[in-house]
Amino acid sequence: MGDLPDKERAFFEWYIEVLERSGITDKRYPIKGMNVWTPFGKKASSLMDRLIRSKIEPLGYDEVNFPALIPETEFKKEGEHIKGFDEQVYWVTHGGKTELDIKLALRPTSETAMYPMFALWVRSHRDLPLRVYQIVNVFRYETKTTRPFIRVREIHFFEGHTVHLSAVEAEKQVREDIDSFVAITRALCLPHLSIRRPDWDKFPGARYSIAFDMPLGGSKTLQIATVHYYADNFARAYGIAFEDRDGTQKIPHQTTYGISERLLGAVVGMHGDAKGLVFPSSIAPVQVVVIPIPGAGDSPELTSATEVVMNSLKELGIRAVLDASDERPGSKFYRWELKGVPLRVEIGRREIAEKRVTAVNRLGTKTPLLLEGLGEGILTALSAFDSALAARAEASLRSRMVQVTDGGALNPEVVNVIGWCGRAECGHEVEKTPGLSLLGTVEDSEHLGKLPPPVCHFCKNPTNAVWAVAARPL
Amino acid sequence: MGDLPDKERAFFEWYIEVLERSGITDKRYPIKGMNVWTPFGKKASSLMDRLIRSKIEPLGYDEVNFPALIPETEFKKEGEHIKGFDEQVYWVTHGGKTELDIKLALRPTSETAMYPMFALWVRSHRDLPLRVYQIVNVFRYETKTTRPFIRVREIHFFEGHTVHLSAVEAEKQVREDIDSFVAITRALCLPHLSIRRPDWDKFPGARYSIAFDMPLGGSKTLQIATVHYYADNFARAYGIAFEDRDGTQKIPHQTTYGISERLLGAVVGMHGDAKGLVFPSSIAPVQVVVIPIPGAGDSPELTSATEVVMNSLKELGIRAVLDASDERPGSKFYRWELKGVPLRVEIGRREIAEKRVTAVNRLGTKTPLLLEGLGEGILTALSAFDSALAARAEASLRSRMVQVTDGGALNPEVVNVIGWCGRAECGHEVEKTPGLSLLGTVEDSEHLGKLPPPVCHFCKNPTNAVWAVAARPL
Repeated sequence: MGDLPDKERAFFEWYIEVLERSGITDKRYPIKGMNVWTPFGKKASSLMDRLIRSKIEPLGYDEVNFPALIPETEFKKEGEHIKGFDEQVYWVTHGGKTELDIKLALRPTSETAMYPMFALWVRSHRDLPLRVYQIVNVFRYETKTTRPFIRVREIHFFEGHTVHLSAVEAEKQVREDIDSFVAITRALCLPHLSIRRPDWDKFPGARYSIAFDMPLGGSKTLQIATVHYYADNFARAYGIAFEDRDGTQKIPHQTTYGISERLLGAVVGMHGDAKGLVFPSSIAPVQVVVIPIPGAGDSPELTSATEVVMNSLKELGIRAVLDASDERPGSKFYRWELKGVPLRVEIGRREIAEKRVTAVNRLGTKTPLLLEGLGEGILTALSAFDSALAARAEASLRSRMVQVTDGGALNPEVVNVIGWCGRAECGHEVEKTPGLSLLGTVEDSEHLGKLPPPVCHFCKNPTNAVWAVAARPL
Repeated sequence: MGDLPDKERAFFEWYIEVLERSGITDKRYPIKGMNVWTPFGKKASSLMDRLIRSKIEPLGYDEVNFPALIPETEFKKEGEHIKGFDEQVYWVTHGGKTELDIKLALRPTSETAMYPMFALWVRSHRDLPLRVYQIVNVFRYETKTTRPFIRVREIHFFEGHTVHLSAVEAEKQVREDIDSFVAITRALCLPHLSIRRPDWDKFPGARYSIAFDMPLGGSKTLQIATVHYYADNFARAYGIAFEDRDGTQKIPHQTTYGISERLLGAVVGMHGDAKGLVFPSSIAPVQVVVIPIPGAGDSPELTSATEVVMNSLKELGIRAVLDASDERPGSKFYRWELKGVPLRVEIGRREIAEKRVTAVNRLGTKTPLLLEGLGEGILTALSAFDSALAARAEASLRSRMVQVTDGGALNPEVVNVIGWCGRAECGHEVEKTPGLSLLGTVEDSEHLGKLPPPVCHFCKNPTNAVWAVAARPL
C-alpha cells in the first residue's frame, strides 16, 4: 500500500484512510453513518469505557440501564428539548404488522426516558443526590456528512444524570464533572478547552452548557463532551419533587454529563500521523508488541528469550502481543505502527548477547532495556511515551490558537481567542468571518498561556468582557 | 411489609413481589415489558456479563458491536428467518419527519446485521474460523404476558456468531459452546437440561437447535439459552464464501450461541426463597455484608474490629459492604437477606472477646470464623455456600422430573422424561395432554440419573428411540 494522504493538507482523507487501513472500524455496513465496531475497535472502545468509569464512579455515580425506546408522550413533555431533536429522532411506528398506538422514539439521549422514573424514585431529601450513568448507544438521524466516530447515526455514549437538593449542589456537581473530564483527557494525552456555550447554542432544555472542544483537522474544532446544568427545568416538566427536612415540597436541580465516541475520534485525529494510529497507553488494545529479529542459527535461544520477555510483561498486566510469524521484521513494524501500538520490543542476536532488548516507541524513540527488571523498564518507557505524546498534542493545540487582542481580523484558519462582552449582538459578529462561530467563553485557561484583561473584540467595552473562542466547529 | 407470597403455590406472585421488594428491577417504565435496570440489578447483570465473557473468550470469541438497525432488504434475505420474526419486529419508519426509503428493523437478533459484513470479511480459508460475540440489547414486540427478565420486549443478550471451514468444525463449535454453558451455569449453581429441539421448534433458519431449559415455577420450564447449527443456510443467503487451500470457492458453515437475561430470571426463580433473593457468590453484587452488633460501651473497639474485617475482605477482592447504620440488627438482617447476600458477618461484644466473627450464610448456616486468617475463612464459607446452593437446586430439578417408562399417562405438573422414536406424529401426541409440549431430545444425562434403553412412549417402537422431555414451556 502507498503512503497515507497528508494529514495536514487533507485531514479527512487521511482520517478515513487511517481508520480503514488500521481496521479500527468498518463503515461498509449498509446504513450510512452506522458502522461496525470490529474486534480491534471494540477493544479500544471498551478500554475507553473502563477509563471513563474509573474517573466517574469515585464521584458517586451508579451504573443503570434505561430502555432505548421512549413513548412520544414522555418525549414531548419538555418543549425546548423536543424542538431541539425534532429533525433527528428515529421513530418506531410498528410492532410486527401492528401500528403502535403511541409511537416510540429511539433515544437520542435519555433525559425523557429517565426523568419519569426519577419522579418515582425521588421522594425525600434522603433520596438526594441521585447520580446515575449509563453507557449505551444513542441514535440520531444525521443529515450532514457522516464520519466514523465523529458524526454517526448510532453513537456509543456515556451519559451521567444527577438530581440535587439545590442549585448550589447541582453546580458543584458540574465542577466535579468538569474535573473528571480533565482526568479522562489527561489519561488520553489529549488537551482540550472547556468552553461555556453562548445562550443561543446551549443544549435544548439546559440553563447553561459547558462543552469540551478540541482542535481537529487543522483549523476546525470538535465538541467531544458536555456538562449541562438544567436548573429545575426538566424536574418541573417531569414532576420530580422531594420533601425537604422542613417538611416542604421542593423541586430539585439537575445536571447531565455526556461523552460520546467522538473522544475516540479525537484520539485518532490528534495523535495519529503519517504511519497510522497512535494510541496512548491507557486505551491501547496492544500496549507492547514483541518482535524477535531472527538471525542464523539462534532460534532456540531467541524463543526462550522472547518467552522471558512475554512473561515479565504479562506479570505486570501489560497488554502484550508476541509477533513471531515468519514475515520479515520490516513488515511487522509497519503493521503494528499502523495499529498505533505505543511500544515495540525487538530482540535479536545482539540483544541476547548483551542481555537486553531494544524498545522503540511509536514516536520513534529508541531505548535499550536490560532483561533484568524488564517489566519496570517497560512501564517507565510507556510512561515516557505518554508524556511525549501529551507534549506533542499540547504543542499542536497551542500552535492552532491565536490570541487576537488588537481588534484585528479574525482568522478562519485558526482557533481565535478574543475578548467578548457577552452581548449577543457582538457574539454574532463572529459569523461575519465565513465559517467562524463563537464557541463560547473560556472556563479554564490551562492551555491559553498568560492573557491580559480582555476588552470586547467588537464593541471594545471592557465591562463584563471575558475571553472567548471563535473557531470553525465540525 | 408482610410475608412474600408462597413460592410453591403462587410462583409468579412471589417472583414479581421479590423483584419489586429487592429493587433489582423497576417495571414502572411507561412501556410494557421494557424495564429499568436499577443500580442493584445492573451490578448483577454486569457480573453475569463478566462471567459469560470469562467462559467464552477462551474459546476464541472476539467482542464486536454491530448496529442495532437492519435494513428491511437485508433482513428479508433468509426466508425462514424473516417468517419466524414477522410478528415480533419493531420497525423504524421515520427519521425526524422524513419517511425512510427503506424501513429499518430494530434487531431482534443480529444474523441479518452481521452476515452481510461477514461476506466482506471472509475471503480465504485463512480468515476462518471467525468467532465474534456481542453483548447488546435486542428487541421483540412480545404480545404474551411480559415478566421481568423472563419475557421482555428489550432483552439484554449475549450473542455469539461463528463461521467455519466445514460442517465438522462448525459442529465441534456447537459442542464447545454447550460445554461453556455448563461452566456458566455451574458458576451460578444452576442445573440445566441440554435439549435438542424437535424440527418443528428449531430456530428460524437453523439446521438444528440445542436449547438449555430449566424448571421454573413448579411445573414449568424456561428456555434460557440456545446454540444453533446453521449449516450453510445463512451463508448461501448472504453470499459468504471462501477460497479453500486447493483454490476452489466454498460455502462456510455457521453456528450461533445466545444467552439472554432470562439467565438472571432463572437465578432469581431457582434460588430465591421466602426471605427474598439468593445470589450465588459469582454474581452477587454484595458477597458479604458486615454488621456490627452494638452493645453498651463497646463502640471504639467495635469500630476498629469492623475495620480489620473490612480490610481483610477487600484485600482478597471480596465485594463487601459495611452496614454500620443505627438501625437495629434485625432490620438489617431482613434487608440484606431480601437482597440475596450470600454471607452475613456479625461482630459483637462476644465475638471481639473471642477474636472471631460469626458468619451466617443465606441458607442459614452459622460458622464462627477466627479473625486471624479471616479472608481465607470467608472464601471457604462462600464456597461451601455455593455448594449447598447448587445441591439444593439440583435436588429441586430432580424432584420435578419424572421418568415415564411404562407408557402411563403424562403428568402436566412435572417434567416428563419419555422415550421417543423421533417421528413427528408421535412427538405431537404429547400435546394431547393439555399444556404439555415435546421440548426435544436429551443431549446430556447428567441430571437424569440412570435410564434404561428407551422405547417410544407412543408407538412402543425401540427403533431410533431416544430419551426426550415433555413439559410446559413458559
